[in-house]
Amino acid sequence: MTTTSTDPKVQQWVNLAQQLRVDSIRCTTAAGSGHPTSSMSAADLMAVLLTGYLHYDFDAPKNPNNDHLIFSKGHASPLLYSLYKAAGAITDEELLTLRKFGSRLEGHPTPILPWVDVATGSLGQGLPIGVGVALAGKYLDKLPYHIWVLLGDSEVAEGSVWEAFDHASYYKLDNLVAILDVNRLGQRGETMHGWNTTLYAERAEAFGWNAIVIDGHNFDEINQAFAKAAKPDGKPTVIIAKTEKGKGVSFLENKEGWHGKALNKQQEEQALNELDHVRSQTFPVQKPENLQPAPEAAKKALELPTYDGKEAVATRKAYGDALKALGAANPDVVVLDGEVSNSTFADEFARAYPDRFFEQFIAEQQLVASAIGMSVRHKIPFASTFAAFFSRAYDFIRMAAISHANIRLSGSHAGVSIGEDGPSQMALEDLAMMRAVYGSTVLYPSDANQTVQLVAAMAEHDGIVYMRTTREKTPVIYTPEEEFMVGGSKVVHQSDKDVVTIVAAGITLHEALQAYEQLKSQKIMARVIDAYSIKPIDEETLMLAADEAGNKIVVVEDHWPEGGLGDAVLEAFTMRNGPIPDVVKLAVQSMPGSGTPAELMEEAGIGANHIVQAVRVLVRKA
Amino acid sequence: MTTTSTDPKVQQWVNLAQQLRVDSIRCTTAAGSGHPTSSMSAADLMAVLLTGYLHYDFDAPKNPNNDHLIFSKGHASPLLYSLYKAAGAITDEELLTLRKFGSRLEGHPTPILPWVDVATGSLGQGLPIGVGVALAGKYLDKLPYHIWVLLGDSEVAEGSVWEAFDHASYYKLDNLVAILDVNRLGQRGETMHGWNTTLYAERAEAFGWNAIVIDGHNFDEINQAFAKAAKPDGKPTVIIAKTEKGKGVSFLENKEGWHGKALNKQQEEQALNELDHVRSQTFPVQKPENLQPAPEAAKKALELPTYDGKEAVATRKAYGDALKALGAANPDVVVLDGEVSNSTFADEFARAYPDRFFEQFIAEQQLVASAIGMSVRHKIPFASTFAAFFSRAYDFIRMAAISHANIRLSGSHAGVSIGEDGPSQMALEDLAMMRAVYGSTVLYPSDANQTVQLVAAMAEHDGIVYMRTTREKTPVIYTPEEEFMVGGSKVVHQSDKDVVTIVAAGITLHEALQAYEQLKSQKIMARVIDAYSIKPIDEETLMLAADEAGNKIVVVEDHWPEGGLGDAVLEAFTMRNGPIPDVVKLAVQSMPGSGTPAELMEEAGIGANHIVQAVRVLVRKA
Repeated sequence: MTTTSTDPKVQQWVNLAQQLRVDSIRCTTAAGSGHPTSSMSAADLMAVLLTGYLHYDFDAPKNPNNDHLIFSKGHASPLLYSLYKAAGAITDEELLTLRKFGSRLEGHPTPILPWVDVATGSLGQGLPIGVGVALAGKYLDKLPYHIWVLLGDSEVAEGSVWEAFDHASYYKLDNLVAILDVNRLGQRGETMHGWNTTLYAERAEAFGWNAIVIDGHNFDEINQAFAKAAKPDGKPTVIIAKTEKGKGVSFLENKEGWHGKALNKQQEEQALNELDHVRSQTFPVQKPENLQPAPEAAKKALELPTYDGKEAVATRKAYGDALKALGAANPDVVVLDGEVSNSTFADEFARAYPDRFFEQFIAEQQLVASAIGMSVRHKIPFASTFAAFFSRAYDFIRMAAISHANIRLSGSHAGVSIGEDGPSQMALEDLAMMRAVYGSTVLYPSDANQTVQLVAAMAEHDGIVYMRTTREKTPVIYTPEEEFMVGGSKVVHQSDKDVVTIVAAGITLHEALQAYEQLKSQKIMARVIDAYSIKPIDEETLMLAADEAGNKIVVVEDHWPEGGLGDAVLEAFTMRNGPIPDVVKLAVQSMPGSGTPAELMEEAGIGANHIVQAVRVLVRKA
Repeated sequence: MTTTSTDPKVQQWVNLAQQLRVDSIRCTTAAGSGHPTSSMSAADLMAVLLTGYLHYDFDAPKNPNNDHLIFSKGHASPLLYSLYKAAGAITDEELLTLRKFGSRLEGHPTPILPWVDVATGSLGQGLPIGVGVALAGKYLDKLPYHIWVLLGDSEVAEGSVWEAFDHASYYKLDNLVAILDVNRLGQRGETMHGWNTTLYAERAEAFGWNAIVIDGHNFDEINQAFAKAAKPDGKPTVIIAKTEKGKGVSFLENKEGWHGKALNKQQEEQALNELDHVRSQTFPVQKPENLQPAPEAAKKALELPTYDGKEAVATRKAYGDALKALGAANPDVVVLDGEVSNSTFADEFARAYPDRFFEQFIAEQQLVASAIGMSVRHKIPFASTFAAFFSRAYDFIRMAAISHANIRLSGSHAGVSIGEDGPSQMALEDLAMMRAVYGSTVLYPSDANQTVQLVAAMAEHDGIVYMRTTREKTPVIYTPEEEFMVGGSKVVHQSDKDVVTIVAAGITLHEALQAYEQLKSQKIMARVIDAYSIKPIDEETLMLAADEAGNKIVVVEDHWPEGGLGDAVLEAFTMRNGPIPDVVKLAVQSMPGSGTPAELMEEAGIGANHIVQAVRVLVRKA
């Protein structure tokens, strides 16, 4: 806005930027809430991007050549939606439905809108996900599209942003441009570093990026910055723009106390007067070249590995074997790992298909974010680390569900049965965490042949799909011919004399099978169910077991009592509004230390002997 | 080890470092697992620290003047335990119990050992927690102790490490020294940046730290670096030490394939030959000066605010009011917030007691880590942000339980009832997440008078204590005289004609109360329980209600169905091995969008009308 140029291009930017400001105010005032001032600071930046640099076909959001525009500062959604209006994608009428019940224009952007790649609004996620999209663009699609990520200055305090900076330069993502809107003011006052744009530039450069510091309201500087940033030179670029929050309206500009506040009608009138007038002009956006993504190897029939049962096999090993088989069959399968691929066995895929393996180092937020970015580009990402360390990325997983992302996560080393490493490495809350994700699928196989089938099913399954694998080698109890599916279970033992059902999964199934033999020798017949699909759980089989086996169930799991297999079994009954059988939950009730797997299972009360004891107490009560 | 000095101090370091290497090998070989090579790379660094710079009274680990030594690279525990032996704190015999069942020497350090401040082993946590301890040292205790944090190079990929770098310089923590052991090799190969110590230095300096690059096996350089780092100059210091993994043993030094592997007996013999011999020398460690922590204002009687019920009050507002009252009464209470204190109402405390308020900006991992660090120094920390954003710090919360930390977390803006902001801002998994933390307490008040009593109870309660607060203003339904406690509940309505029980908490209690009136007018008497203590839940009252009110329960919650209040109610019954009543769970079953709180509660099926309907169906079944 400091430009007085008569250049028609500049005049167009001025007009567009003013329209974006006007619309950001109008829609938030109509909503009675929202973030007009955080939108206004970035209006000049986005005006130049939309008409000068973005390549996007708004009529064909699935065009693989489209650029990607991610608002990491999701609260600036009024600006994003105003951009969509300026591009002709939505009407002024729809714009004014912002934040209303049933509107596609939610308080923070979600992919209900076809031009939105991912949900944002939890700060510090847009850039890491942009890194994932950029990895796909540069190394898989091999298309020249750009990823433009608008960041707020407050969110640069998030460590996840620095994981993204680190990875973007490591992977030479020169298709990625971050635009940092340094408007100085956070929610409750000044940000950590105010207008210290030099500091931001030094940090970005130390992290291997090009940094361009500009006045974010000077169109010439903005234009030159974008021109430079758009040219690939082996490095990602961040444009660090000094801006004013509320820019363009005298009583909002750089004023505290205006974060996340809509103007009332009188204030709106005053603001619109200053901004000249309401307009609904449509501005031209360049369409992308019509190129084809890098040719993919043809899909082949999947040939899963099989296990003959002569040797015990860890399910994590079977996971790695299955990944490799999937890699051979389907060129869309990509694998990411958090620097533990020799433990998760993702290294089998890495060795076989190095071009589709992306090392994410000890940075679990970026690990999940990269998977989400791959999902944006319709790849089939599998991301693995120790199960406990997905807790580092829980906010990303939560948001991935809002993003409708299709990602597969595999956590190895779960539960006390990992043994000597101690509790920091033991996932004992992963099932609770993953079950409480909208639309998630949670799998926990007990056997190698079962694992490979479920890994194959994961590739075909939408949403957030999590598999817990086991560190220890366990007996192979199923033949390669037996079938396993999402939502299924396996009745391993049953008879018409069953008086109780034991439900187990993963490592505890093997304890349950030992318990079965002990109980049988004591003339107590137990049905044993392998509930390998924890969410969705096989309600039918559980109902039938309750009916046929004395309405008594013992559930045993290597997990805290809260939120795991036991609660999943109860859920099956409460959701049907049916009567609930007597359920006893065996779970880990005290903080484990180090020890052998057997010692720790025994100590935790989830070994075979404890199952036998629990069954005997429950049956005696009858 | 490159020194050939005859200086007795240097000779002592050489001797100590070799003993540390020998012991790191011996204890892991005895354990059959563990991380000898990651210990050996830092042995020279720690030898100089222990005898030259650490001030610590191993006989009095609670001495407030002690330095703090945190192994952020927790897998180097053999080195830490070998240091304890060298300081005379543990015997050689105990050292050789490493990783054995029942030993205090777990695979990764935990505070079962009195000299360990916090559990580590999830990488990238030691430094953020060190920042918390350093904040306490500089601004609260006002004692000259140092915080020494040993970091691995792999873990610098964690964003949380950069949150810590950012905060440490912002708060001028010159009592904090990070020692970065750049041994180049991660678990499965080279780290992201190998031996590029210049890169690490540039990043640290850009983040406002002093950076000293040294050869981590040159005692003169190590000594000079520590001498410089120990002098306060307004900035934290990182010593960036180029080292070799497995240093000191020819077949281990800088070799791939040796991460996390113990030597076998034959290898051990060969290694010990190279390292000269086994020794069990005790080395002198300087004791700290005997100073007193900054004098605290005397404790005063707690005067909690009261609410007369004339106006509706949001429980988040009551939280802020109560914090301020606690601040007046108890000088140990400190408050931290994630840059949303005007939403969580932590700003009331910040204004009243600015010296005990620590702004943590949009960095939730650091927010929780700072609270843990404050807990190490026996403060009473309360940390707040939007409930959804604690998911960003779940790994820190998980580890805090292993650390026996006493921290209080408060999450505002929970559930669909926040309204227009949309799902990114709606915590719908926080109860599941927090319940699945070992030994945690989970509170969810419905009323302002209740809230302030529970906030007071939090201050007195150990472990991880979480309170969910509500954004919307809700009616004040209790008098200031009524009593509420951890583990309690409140029966709001009961009669001898009750045929069903409605269990609610927080926002849904108000819906339940409306449903009660509707049902009453239809001649259906319901007991209404306010289950404000979700963990531990009031089993007695629930049992009694089941007995007296038709063995039918409707639970209603503003949360996903998994792991929340409904499961807590079921837990009460399954844990007692008693018969389970008919339980219907009303919870959020589909992804919400934007809308008014009332619209979204209705849409989610957790409003008064849905409760009435669910009760009618359940009762009709009888």
